[in-house]
Amino acid sequence: MSEIVTAAMMVIGDEILSGRTKDRNIGHLADILTAVGIDLKEVRIVPDEEDEIAAAVNALRSRYTYVFTSGGIGPTHDDITADSIAKAFGVPCEHDAAALALLGAHYAKRAMEFTDARKRMARMPRGAVHIDNPVSVAPGFVIGNVHVMAGVPSIFQAMLDNVIPTLRTGTKLLSATVQCPHGEGVIGGPLGDIQKANPETIIGSYPKYGDGKFWTELVVRSRSPEALEVARSAVEAMVAGLSKSG
Amino acid sequence: MSEIVTAAMMVIGDEILSGRTKDRNIGHLADILTAVGIDLKEVRIVPDEEDEIAAAVNALRSRYTYVFTSGGIGPTHDDITADSIAKAFGVPCEHDAAALALLGAHYAKRAMEFTDARKRMARMPRGAVHIDNPVSVAPGFVIGNVHVMAGVPSIFQAMLDNVIPTLRTGTKLLSATVQCPHGEGVIGGPLGDIQKANPETIIGSYPKYGDGKFWTELVVRSRSPEALEVARSAVEAMVAGLSKSG
Repeated sequence: MSEIVTAAMMVIGDEILSGRTKDRNIGHLADILTAVGIDLKEVRIVPDEEDEIAAAVNALRSRYTYVFTSGGIGPTHDDITADSIAKAFGVPCEHDAAALALLGAHYAKRAMEFTDARKRMARMPRGAVHIDNPVSVAPGFVIGNVHVMAGVPSIFQAMLDNVIPTLRTGTKLLSATVQCPHGEGVIGGPLGDIQKANPETIIGSYPKYGDGKFWTELVVRSRSPEALEVARSAVEAMVAGLSKSG
Repeated sequence: MSEIVTAAMMVIGDEILSGRTKDRNIGHLADILTAVGIDLKEVRIVPDEEDEIAAAVNALRSRYTYVFTSGGIGPTHDDITADSIAKAFGVPCEHDAAALALLGAHYAKRAMEFTDARKRMARMPRGAVHIDNPVSVAPGFVIGNVHVMAGVPSIFQAMLDNVIPTLRTGTKLLSATVQCPHGEGVIGGPLGDIQKANPETIIGSYPKYGDGKFWTELVVRSRSPEALEVARSAVEAMVAGLSKSG
């Protein structure tokens, strides 16, 4: 039997919603989760508002195996992710002793002042477990099934590398791509028939447009290699047949 | 008085959640809405599943002035946006006579068969109004406050260009950026004080990291030019003071 493991992502930050910063973490997380056999089922981008963050994480953590967040864990007043997640879990947000020690040692070694702002980065919901940050020390954290990570892409990626080996992964969704020189209007009918005849697969059609012409990428997905191959062959035969008659 | 107009976006598509296609519409919509004075407050990316799409659009359309969607309006079996939106509004999804005529004429002129798949692109919720598609004819549509557009970026952008002049826009959120050579740990405290003293503004701190060093972009936003200038000056003075003492 295939095991299905699901996930959601929550991107936190006014700067993404204003267009000022273009998100680069959604695509990266999607790629990595697909590679390890976890189905990303939903993404929400929410503003820097405590109630919005808390409501969204509660909606997501009850529905999916895992939740991953990016953003809002720095030292400034607009970094409110730790407080918001604590609120969602109904636990206090407090300075974590181990995180304080880690950050304190880091700044001491560099003869930098351990300011109150920097101490903010050691705050997390009571009971949270660190996610190591090899780039800039200040840890992310895990509480329940929620993984809280930085928004800066290089740090998000480094934290995610540390998280992935700790996750339960599912049976990988396999995929096969068939390039199709025809537009969706031509293939839509027969492709729908192939989908109906192959219920163990998910067949997607992705329209491409350029130079005034439409073409498509047809992607067959399945957790069963056998079912994948049957559907892939049917799609290839369909495309070859259309090209011959066209 | 400033008028606030809000919006949400719903991106529809398994291909975004699998990482196969990287979304380019969120950032574009965010930029355009910010430019015209509409606040994008939430984004959701949902899979190609009718109930998920319907539930998300109902959650969003009741909360925000406008909802914009991308994806799932092509001719193939996995394009289920029109049906899902109709379901959300509790109206039938049916072939629209004007859209059928438009598409029929388009294919007739090119001596192309008007297949059942292509006819699918004329289906929309009863009562919907077209959004013109200058790229590939098949229209998007508006129902209530929901604007349903294509996922292919060039078509999404062209449709959005047609939608923007029809929208009520708010008082534009102005912004001013101050480049700061210091990391967030240094500025976090004083910046928080400036935010507290300037409640008519939203001050964001965006950490940048490269070559082993942190620096920040500080962005002051306000609907009042006067309030913006007061806070911007305070932020600049803070940065100058830190650079002198540092």
